[in-house]
Amino acid sequence: MIIDCHGHYTTAPAELQTFRQGQISALENPSLPDPPNPTMSDDEIRASLEGAQLKLSRERGIDLTIFSPRASAMAHHIGTEKTSVAWAHACNDLIARVCGLYPENFVGVCQLPQSPGADLKASIRELERCVNELGFIGLNLNPDPSGGMWNSAPLTDKFWYPIYEKMVELDVPAMVHVSSSCNPNFHATGAHYINADTTAFMQFIQADLFRDFPTLRFIIPHGGGAVPYHWGRYRGLAQDMKRPLLEESVLKNVFFDTCVYHLPGIELLLEVIPTENILFGSEMVGAVRGIDPRTGNNYDDTKKYIDAMGLDDATRRKIFETNAYHVYPRLKAKLAAIAR
Amino acid sequence: MIIDCHGHYTTAPAELQTFRQGQISALENPSLPDPPNPTMSDDEIRASLEGAQLKLSRERGIDLTIFSPRASAMAHHIGTEKTSVAWAHACNDLIARVCGLYPENFVGVCQLPQSPGADLKASIRELERCVNELGFIGLNLNPDPSGGMWNSAPLTDKFWYPIYEKMVELDVPAMVHVSSSCNPNFHATGAHYINADTTAFMQFIQADLFRDFPTLRFIIPHGGGAVPYHWGRYRGLAQDMKRPLLEESVLKNVFFDTCVYHLPGIELLLEVIPTENILFGSEMVGAVRGIDPRTGNNYDDTKKYIDAMGLDDATRRKIFETNAYHVYPRLKAKLAAIAR
Repeated sequence: MIIDCHGHYTTAPAELQTFRQGQISALENPSLPDPPNPTMSDDEIRASLEGAQLKLSRERGIDLTIFSPRASAMAHHIGTEKTSVAWAHACNDLIARVCGLYPENFVGVCQLPQSPGADLKASIRELERCVNELGFIGLNLNPDPSGGMWNSAPLTDKFWYPIYEKMVELDVPAMVHVSSSCNPNFHATGAHYINADTTAFMQFIQADLFRDFPTLRFIIPHGGGAVPYHWGRYRGLAQDMKRPLLEESVLKNVFFDTCVYHLPGIELLLEVIPTENILFGSEMVGAVRGIDPRTGNNYDDTKKYIDAMGLDDATRRKIFETNAYHVYPRLKAKLAAIAR
Repeated sequence: MIIDCHGHYTTAPAELQTFRQGQISALENPSLPDPPNPTMSDDEIRASLEGAQLKLSRERGIDLTIFSPRASAMAHHIGTEKTSVAWAHACNDLIARVCGLYPENFVGVCQLPQSPGADLKASIRELERCVNELGFIGLNLNPDPSGGMWNSAPLTDKFWYPIYEKMVELDVPAMVHVSSSCNPNFHATGAHYINADTTAFMQFIQADLFRDFPTLRFIIPHGGGAVPYHWGRYRGLAQDMKRPLLEESVLKNVFFDTCVYHLPGIELLLEVIPTENILFGSEMVGAVRGIDPRTGNNYDDTKKYIDAMGLDDATRRKIFETNAYHVYPRLKAKLAAIAR
């Protein structure tokens, strides 16, 4: 079984964006009412997926995608916490409908109603709702709800502990995933995403978060940002800082996906990061949609790169399937329920 | 000849830090006088280098280092532009003394007196002074003088054009190099540096800076941040954005150093980035000072990784020597003057 741990609903029906635009209009003109909840038919949802994620998954041989709302559209910096609550509800409910329509193809991960300056109570409530009521198996945690201003506390700060306590209780992991950037220095998918990945990993090196939460688990997407390429730097920095070996201090809790869009990058990832810490992901349909003229394949068809490596079956299976069971313990129960 | 394009004077005599502390004290208590210019003897300067950069260079077989003030200490966010002007003067004058004492070992690159919110006039004056009077061959340009707040304009914004005009006139390149971080999210050498490298490259993809300045040249240090590891992502993003091929739009003007502290990273760099765009660098004595227990060598002994690759002589010579002549045209004249 091939499990893609990193898919976003980037092709949602236009009604979802109409709702969001209604929110933004009401923020700009408070005399306007809040927008009504988006309504779309099952057929509209099917149409949005059949020609995109489902088609590509079938072509590429991906069986199941761990699926969450469009990351760039989370935009936690827009409006207030109330804005984010309504938006997260709408987006997560839609993911639940997708998973209901295609239970063999998609399992849900939620967007949180984070908001700059807000505490995490609403996020915890939404996480509980999504896991307990909608059957989701994880969450996307935005380390920078400001959208490129980076004025929140580091992920190792006690500010975040309430959500970590809930994650441990529910036994769900978080993908560390920023959203769009309103800082003109940072292109969203070309800089902000990758920087956030790198930043989070270094934060994890610096502190004892995983001593406080030994079972807390994070996926750092986009192949871990710059981290595997600079693995020697991170090993050396930890050593100079008298921190434990990365294998002991971070790698029991932190995992990387394979959203690296060329073979040499995937080769490096698999060479330097233990197999146990790598989860197959493609972020399809996502940041890069074109076909690489050098290969004739989509840049984001990351399965092809892994296939090209000639891995033994045990290694392949860990990356494509079984590591995901460890990181997302609720996934096994979902699959068992489908099989019944 | 082996030229290291990336060295900082991280071991300067304590008098330099005393001067800086005097500046900071005067900022905190304006009744205090500005500190006197640091004075240190030639012997103190020699002692600071003989047991460190010079010793290691000799051991490692590095002939010449392109040498600039300690990057993390630039701290452009401290005080006002006047603070930065005096600090840059002191630091650059000290680099000039190093180059005067060891003309065969060090060639100077300057720190600029950037300051948040200030224009670039003082930086241009200092650049002219350092090139025309002190014989420097390049500059370090901080894309984020705020120290992790990222509230300046992107490097492709017209804000920066005056210094680019001066760089073109003087025919000197800039290394894009941030300084310390006062944002608790960003560890300086583990996140802020790498993020800045990644950020700058993506900015260069997005705009037509090099159409406006066809001969402008930048070195992106630390192996280009995350860029080579995500080369497929950058190629794909440029393609999706209908930008030209990176080879045409960016790689005539942007170069990477080899400050990547493990062999797999160096292998990736040399595999995906054209040889013409790679300059040997180690940033020694710098961010990572320990010995890798896996190899028994210093993490930052990057020459060993390149040596291990079994490159042909032509490729080696480009990376170790001749690419530097292209990027730093004033270097050849300096070497000729030494040889005389």
